[in-house]
This record gives sequence, structure tokens and C-alpha cells, in this order.
Amino acid sequence: MALIVQKYGGTSVGSPERIAAVAEKVFAHREKGDSVVVVVSAMSGETNRLLDLAAAITDIPVPRELDVLLSTGEQVTIALLTMALDKLGCAARSYTGGQVHIRTDSVHNKARIREIDDQHMKADLAAGRVVVVAGFQGVDEDGNITTLGRGGSDTTAVALAAALKADECQIYTDVDGVYTTDPRVEPKARRLDRVTFEEMLEMASLGSKVLQIRSVSFAGRYNVPLRVLSSFEEGEGTLITYEDETMEQALISGIAFNRDEAKLTVLGVPDTPGVAHQLLGPIAAANIEVDMIIQNVAPDGATTDFTFTVHRNDYSKALDILNKTATVLGAREVLGDNSIVKISLVGVGMRSHAGIASTMFETLAKEGVNIRMISTSEIKVSVVVDEKYLELGVRALHEAFKLDQPPGH
Amino acid sequence: MALIVQKYGGTSVGSPERIAAVAEKVFAHREKGDSVVVVVSAMSGETNRLLDLAAAITDIPVPRELDVLLSTGEQVTIALLTMALDKLGCAARSYTGGQVHIRTDSVHNKARIREIDDQHMKADLAAGRVVVVAGFQGVDEDGNITTLGRGGSDTTAVALAAALKADECQIYTDVDGVYTTDPRVEPKARRLDRVTFEEMLEMASLGSKVLQIRSVSFAGRYNVPLRVLSSFEEGEGTLITYEDETMEQALISGIAFNRDEAKLTVLGVPDTPGVAHQLLGPIAAANIEVDMIIQNVAPDGATTDFTFTVHRNDYSKALDILNKTATVLGAREVLGDNSIVKISLVGVGMRSHAGIASTMFETLAKEGVNIRMISTSEIKVSVVVDEKYLELGVRALHEAFKLDQPPGH
Repeated sequence: MALIVQKYGGTSVGSPERIAAVAEKVFAHREKGDSVVVVVSAMSGETNRLLDLAAAITDIPVPRELDVLLSTGEQVTIALLTMALDKLGCAARSYTGGQVHIRTDSVHNKARIREIDDQHMKADLAAGRVVVVAGFQGVDEDGNITTLGRGGSDTTAVALAAALKADECQIYTDVDGVYTTDPRVEPKARRLDRVTFEEMLEMASLGSKVLQIRSVSFAGRYNVPLRVLSSFEEGEGTLITYEDETMEQALISGIAFNRDEAKLTVLGVPDTPGVAHQLLGPIAAANIEVDMIIQNVAPDGATTDFTFTVHRNDYSKALDILNKTATVLGAREVLGDNSIVKISLVGVGMRSHAGIASTMFETLAKEGVNIRMISTSEIKVSVVVDEKYLELGVRALHEAFKLDQPPGH
Repeated sequence: MALIVQKYGGTSVGSPERIAAVAEKVFAHREKGDSVVVVVSAMSGETNRLLDLAAAITDIPVPRELDVLLSTGEQVTIALLTMALDKLGCAARSYTGGQVHIRTDSVHNKARIREIDDQHMKADLAAGRVVVVAGFQGVDEDGNITTLGRGGSDTTAVALAAALKADECQIYTDVDGVYTTDPRVEPKARRLDRVTFEEMLEMASLGSKVLQIRSVSFAGRYNVPLRVLSSFEEGEGTLITYEDETMEQALISGIAFNRDEAKLTVLGVPDTPGVAHQLLGPIAAANIEVDMIIQNVAPDGATTDFTFTVHRNDYSKALDILNKTATVLGAREVLGDNSIVKISLVGVGMRSHAGIASTMFETLAKEGVNIRMISTSEIKVSVVVDEKYLELGVRALHEAFKLDQPPGH
């Protein structure tokens, strides 16, 4: 008799047949006696179809109207899923973001949820009905339709689970859980039964695309147990919760990596206070996000070398800006490299175990992988290496940390 | 400086290019200084696409959810049109039926408008913005999305015009006005500059498909001047208003006809009180609408002959029912004919002119057209004739009443 919130993404509801399959999954939970709230995305392809229509009208769609347009995608899905549930004899009712009062701020295209009115939903659940809610959308104070931006349906699901104090928020997707690393790179990658919010956040920020970082952070903040499962296969998926003393503690949980990195270096900048700000200020002003930052005093003692990474898409723009700044500051040289990748070990076990980083460096050295940059946090060690070493590095580390075996074996 | 409500149907907004063309039309009115509220339908084809999706899920879609589904069609159009207006530099804002509080009853799929909250719209108009409203949809008291049924966008436009006390409600369509008769049957048919609500109602009920009967009746009730124009050509269209003494009075305004008629006759029913009810009760119970009804005493004086017409689609069902009833009542014979048509003269001028009907009968007799049934109302004379005489009859009458010339010439 649990209360669960389930979220099905665009691929899971990509056709009438798949919507019917989702209805059967939902109905099975009802039959077991669970109360179910379902959040759905637009059918896959639908959002692009709508964006194409807008693009045929104008290059710069009004943000408010783009939200009016895009929010129809999920509205179609809630109606179809509720019809499919009705056909199975499962009482259900659909709600748009506005109807269930998902109140957001007024930042169109990337609004943030402020509050949710759970009255309608609670009445429906009490009456035994499945509640079907359009993900990704809400309304602002003045009743304008807003959308939450990419991955917004996950956020909707977590927000509803938090508001309703659900026992679990289940995110159905096209993968069957969170893996120790990407199985396409390391076939021995293993599905994790559990992972902590902090680990999941690090993995998401490192490019693991299973869940949107915002929904994980939201779930962590409101302590909503989050489970990632496959829409297409049976299985328990991966549960994302706070650390639990009874959990068998692994040293590290997984290896994340990010192919979309580029590295920029300024050599021989006169080492005066505020140099970091002078270098990075113009980059930030151009809306370029900077990831890793390293500063070292140069051998001459009077200048400094400064390196940072950006998304590969921003590489040439960042290089242009940096060249200009370097000239102004009288730096010796600017170097760039856009064929690098970042590999990261992630695990809350690091907190209580020394030596993780050195095992990592040793493993990579043995394979002849040259490390270009290093950055660490409490539960993460990241290295930047040449792109060509990605697969080799990930596999070697997966092996060295015995990630193919469950912890304790 | 007039306040006008314009309605553009599905064909007029059938593609991004057409939506852009509508935006230019609307903007031209704004440039002239008019305040404009625009009501739009779903892009042509969109409603059918949505119905196909529903049909792929279930044969019997839940009415509430069908409304949630179908209402997305107009929502897409309002967003796109508002973007197109913005691109032209024309300030505009879109509203769904729910956002502009088009409050309806709760009869899903064919709801009726109860009230409209004009606050948002008036504020926008005062700020110089064009208001773009989704036609065909509303919300009931509990916030459930409702739709008004076929032709509902016309009704929305008229209701908004009434609520805002607009100077004119302009219905843009793929014809350039109301004609004296169907130009495909009589190439000499002439566009009417004006026609009265009553005449328009008769024409609509007789199968003239320019406007939905509900919106005409609504406009008449609230005295909203209605104008039918073409989206694709320039022109003044046809204005539908109350009779105006200054109007050059035509004897008749137009010739309407209906191909979808079928005729059923019972001969020799014992002539007892209540026989009409006994015959038509079972027909009505089967949800078959009866149009013309004629009863005559038979030559023997003790029995009666009874004839009525139904929509051709209901013909065989009605014949089955009538055969059973006739047996019970002891009638002599049941006859049926589903290759008949109805031709009607419509005009408020009939009220003050005798002899219209006899001129009609004379004209048809001259052409050798045999009249099977006759029915009259205050502003209409209808005859039922064999299908094959339709074109001949319409053309002869058009000629006899000089409909190809403006009144007074």
C-alpha cells in the first residue's frame, strides 16, 4: 500500500502501443494496492515537430509562446495514457501542469517549481484513481504557461513525490539502472542496486545521462527515494537514496567520463593578485561554463601557468577570448587542446579510505596513459587524458577497482 | 478605432506560411488603429491526427480526456500565430480557453459557453496588444477542459464579441461570403452584401455550410454583427445583421437546398387521435431527426396518409421502424424514397409580399419539375423534388427571382 510517483519519458510513450504498455505497467501497480501518480513526457519526436513548426514561423520565438506551444506535447500524452488506463478498467484522471497548480516562477523555457497544490491529486488518490500529470510544465502566478526546460519531466515527478510525501519516485527510462560505467565502453559494467544522491550528482555532472542533475538534487534536498528502471524490461533498477549504514560499502561506485571537454592553457602570465579573475571574467561574461581550473607557479617564480577546461562546443570561442586577454595581460603563450576527455572515479567510500587517488594514478601509469590534469573533490577524483586513452583508461580502472563484482565479494 | 473579433478556421491556418499570412492581415487591422481579438482553430488535419492517436488507443475514448487531447490543436495555433505577430513587431498575447476563463457547462465534447471573464483581454487591448484566443475550448467550473464540438471556434468568436461588445465579428473562411445559392450549381449565383440573421439561420439549417447554425443563433441573440469573409482574397464579404429599414429590400435573399433528404410515407393509417405521435414516437426514440411532416386525410375519409423526411443516413433505420409501427397500427402500406432533395426559397421580404410561393410553384411546373412535398414558414418556402431536378430547379428559380441582380435593379 505504497504511494508511488512514476515518470515515463518520451521513448517510453513514443507510440500508442507503448502508451498502452505503460498503462498495463501502471495498472499492475494499482492491482497490487499501490496508489499511483504518473508523470509523462511528450511522445518522442513530438517536441521536435513543434519546434520545427515554430522555426518555420520565426528564428526567435517569443519565450512565453514557445511554452504555450511545447506544453501541448505532454498534454497529448496525458490524455492518451488516461484513455488507455480507462480501457483497462483502471480509473484515472489527467491534469496539465496548470490544472494541478504546479506553480513556477516566470522564467519561460526554464522555470523553477515554487509550490504544488496537492488537493486535486489527494482527492483522486483517495477515490482510488490513478493521477496522470503532464511533466515539464507549470503556470506562473498570473496563469501563464511555463516549461521547466530539458529533463523537466523528471523534476516534475520528484516535485510531486516531495509534495505528496511519496514512498518512492520511479523514473522509467530506456536503461535498466545506473551502471558502474558506460557498458558501451566496458562490457563488464555492472548495474548498481543502490547509489547515493551525492554519487549520482557527481555522475550526472560528469556526463552520465541517466538522470537530469536538477531532479537528483531536488530529490536529495527533499529526501525522495528515487529509482531508475527500464520501461521495457522487468527489474529492480537502481535506488538512489541517502547513505545507509547497513549498505555494503563500496570504495567507489562508478567511473564516469566526459568526452565533451576541451582544455585551454595560458603560459607565463605575470603572477599578480586577481589574475584568475582577469582571465576567467571575460569567459564567464561570454556565458561559457568553466569546469576544472588549475593554477601553478611557473619555474621562473614571477609568472604563473593557468589551465582550465570548457565544453568542446565553446572551445574556439573561449580560445579567441583567451588570446585577447592574454595579450592584454602580457602572457607568454596560449595553448589549446580539444581532443581531451575527463575520467572520474566517484564514490562516497573515498571519504573513509585513503589511497584511492594513488591507485588510480598507478593504474593509468601502468597502461602508459599520460595524465594532463587532476582535480579532486570529497567523493570524486577526475583526471584529464588524451581522447585516445578513454576506453583503455576506463577499462583498466574498472578492473583495478573490481567494479564488475558486487561490493564485499 | 473599432473593436473587432476575427476568427480564422483550420484551412486559413493550415501551415506556417498561412499563419504568417493571417498575422499580416491582423497586423494591417492594428495599423489602421482597430483593436483586434483573434480566435483560431486547429491547423487543418491536426484534429484528425489527434483523433487517430486516440483511435489507436481505444474505440471509446473517455470524453473528458478527448477534450484534453483535442484542445491541444488550437493551443498550437495560438502560440504560432502570436510568434508570427511578434515577428512583424505586433504586440500580441495568446490565451487558451482556460486562461481566458471561457466558462462552460461540463458536457464534454459539446459544451456550451456560460460566461467569459474579459479582464485579461481588456487589459491587453488597452495596452495595444492583439489578443489571440484558442477557439473551440473552455473550462468547466472545476477547471476541467471542455470543447464546444464541431464549429465551436465560430461560437467562441461570437461569444467573445458579445462579451467584449465588439463592433463586428469577422469569420474568415475559404469562401468570400454568402451567395444567393451554391455557385457550383448556378454559376450566376451572386454574393450578398447583407443578409439577416433569420435568413442565415434558415440557410444554415437547410444545408448551407458557410457558418455553423449555433454561432449564427448566438450572434443573433446577442446582436453581434457577423461578417463572413475570405482568408485568401480581398473583399467585403457578407454582413449578417438584423433587418434594417434602410436596406434595399429583396423579395428573397437566396435559394438553399439539401441533397441529404429521404422521404417516408404511410398510407391508410386509421385516422384516430394521436396517430402522429404513434408514428413518430419510435422514430424520435431511435434518435432520428425528422424534418418536414405532412398529414392528409385519405380519399376514404376514415384513414389518413402521413409523410415525413429524415436525413438520408437514417433512411433504412427509419424505414425498418416505420414498417413495424405501421403493422401494429394496421396501416395499408409504407413507401420510401431516398432519392429526393429539398429546395428552399429564403427571404425576410416574403413577410410583406404575397405570391412568392405561387411564383415558385409556377416556375417549377413550367420546367416540368414535379413537387412531392411543400412546407412553408414565415421566411421560407421549401419543396421536395426528385433528385434529378435539383440543378434545373435551382437555376430556374434563381432566374425567376432575378437573384443574379442586386435588389432594386
